[in-house]
Amino acid sequence: MLNRIGRRTFLATLLALGLASLISIQARAAETDPLPSWNDGPTKQSILDFVAAVTKDGAPDYVPVPERIATIDNDGTLWVEQPIYAQFAFAVDRVKATADKHPEWKTQEPFASILADDLKGLAASGEKGMVEIVEATHSGMTTADFNKTVKDWLAVAKHPRFKVLYTDLIYQPMLELLNYLRANGFKTFIVSGGGVEFMRAFADKTYGIPPEQVIGSSGVTDYQMWDASPVLVKMPKVFFVDDGPGKPEGINHFIGRRPIFAFGNSDGDKEMLEWTAAGEGLSFMGLVHHTDAVREYAYDRDSQVGKLDKALDEAVAKGWTIADMKNDWKTIFPPAKSNP
Amino acid sequence: MLNRIGRRTFLATLLALGLASLISIQARAAETDPLPSWNDGPTKQSILDFVAAVTKDGAPDYVPVPERIATIDNDGTLWVEQPIYAQFAFAVDRVKATADKHPEWKTQEPFASILADDLKGLAASGEKGMVEIVEATHSGMTTADFNKTVKDWLAVAKHPRFKVLYTDLIYQPMLELLNYLRANGFKTFIVSGGGVEFMRAFADKTYGIPPEQVIGSSGVTDYQMWDASPVLVKMPKVFFVDDGPGKPEGINHFIGRRPIFAFGNSDGDKEMLEWTAAGEGLSFMGLVHHTDAVREYAYDRDSQVGKLDKALDEAVAKGWTIADMKNDWKTIFPPAKSNP
Repeated sequence: MLNRIGRRTFLATLLALGLASLISIQARAAETDPLPSWNDGPTKQSILDFVAAVTKDGAPDYVPVPERIATIDNDGTLWVEQPIYAQFAFAVDRVKATADKHPEWKTQEPFASILADDLKGLAASGEKGMVEIVEATHSGMTTADFNKTVKDWLAVAKHPRFKVLYTDLIYQPMLELLNYLRANGFKTFIVSGGGVEFMRAFADKTYGIPPEQVIGSSGVTDYQMWDASPVLVKMPKVFFVDDGPGKPEGINHFIGRRPIFAFGNSDGDKEMLEWTAAGEGLSFMGLVHHTDAVREYAYDRDSQVGKLDKALDEAVAKGWTIADMKNDWKTIFPPAKSNP
Repeated sequence: MLNRIGRRTFLATLLALGLASLISIQARAAETDPLPSWNDGPTKQSILDFVAAVTKDGAPDYVPVPERIATIDNDGTLWVEQPIYAQFAFAVDRVKATADKHPEWKTQEPFASILADDLKGLAASGEKGMVEIVEATHSGMTTADFNKTVKDWLAVAKHPRFKVLYTDLIYQPMLELLNYLRANGFKTFIVSGGGVEFMRAFADKTYGIPPEQVIGSSGVTDYQMWDASPVLVKMPKVFFVDDGPGKPEGINHFIGRRPIFAFGNSDGDKEMLEWTAAGEGLSFMGLVHHTDAVREYAYDRDSQVGKLDKALDEAVAKGWTIADMKNDWKTIFPPAKSNP
């Protein structure tokens, strides 16, 4: 039988051992959970199960490393796309910043509405107006100058609601997913309707995705000699629209392999997910569903930006993974950097 | 003083030691020479010097691994392009193979000339005829079917002079160069005027260059549903011509970084080399000069295929590397596989 001191020592030891093992279990969980910002549940499990299935050597669904191609949308899938795409906010700011060189814009739509901060008038200019704004702000300069302009803008422009840099409004759970995929031999590509040169200005630093793995919409460039030095000049002419059916077409043009993993968030991703699903082996199709008006935004079928309607129905019907932002994501954004 | 046996033993030992060290020196040289099929001299040395300069950590010309982008032409740079591009030989064979489905071709140029083996008539149809032949043989099928057709053709079609498979007519020195670059952290890309889907059918197996690192000319594809399955159908419409100024434009569209190393062999590579040379740091520009009519072909300024005129003058003027096939290459082709 234990005496008093002996008992106390014994209990203290037990307690210490218990705490130690608890700490060790927690530490191990933190070490081994590759997706700590995802709540446990079927969504997270579907990702873990897929990666386990295709990476286990000798297993029936094993996929060799070079064929582990993951294609992931950007706006609304890797970062915030509301209330307007960051790239469109950039274009609007560029119209304002260069207006002194274009006196005609004061009376010419859609520029007049932008300069008068008349969002209603801007909206009234419709898709035609959008195209004019993008052409006016995305052409007439060299690719190098455009790259610098985008970087300069991203370094200072703040999101209207969150008041932080756009590159701070990336989704922490998706960053973890990208890292997890890469740690398992996947090559991660962005496949986005956004402008390829806009995205390349930040994708490497922000997502760890190098320029050559960024696929997007683009304009024609023209090789010219300026002061005996070659430059590529951005022309006001569409080269490729990487949206909807353009996504599988772009995947074929730029990658030349079919992805086995694809993630999107809108109807513009539907064909990319269908194309991925139609591969021969096991494949993973995922959608981010924006359901969290408090921490981010809640929108789907009727949204002007990032409309998710047909792709949602197809995902439900076919059992694709739907990441419900409110329920599946423990945190939305990485710890703030620019907003102390 | 050594007695007779002693002396003999001593000499034998010396001899043995001498031989051993000679053998060891030769073995070491073979082990450490990354370009054994290149003759020693300034051409080979320029490659070795460049790679040493950009890979030595802390040196003034050091380039971080992700920026070590190498872009290399295919026809005439990595494999034989004479007397006609392999892809054109493929197209001609496809016209013959599918002629029964096109009775109108019997009287319709340029198809009638092909079916009559009338090369003069074919040549008379000019570029317009070429385009018609490529369109007729490179569209109207799915990307998957086209890939299979190319692979099947490459497995059997023989080069008219060398009587071996086209994929046996790759340049051993360039294979060594690709391996050497990759061993030094370079990402090797093909940037060719040839069809991207044609090249992707063999580039991985033949050159160790995966589909996503092959850039070439291409046609528009169309996303369609066939029997409820998505397919990409090749359309008779040009999407991108990756030749001349199209090469830097394609490098920008598909890679989004400027190469630091580029190799070509014709005027179609001029702008790619200029674009590479215009980068900020140290860069390497090289041309294969076909000077060996005995072992391969000798051609440059007046050649119909692979004309090398302005780019040669520019290379000489600017001190770019010129690989003189006859003098710089110890061997041309890898040990024969298909031709026993």
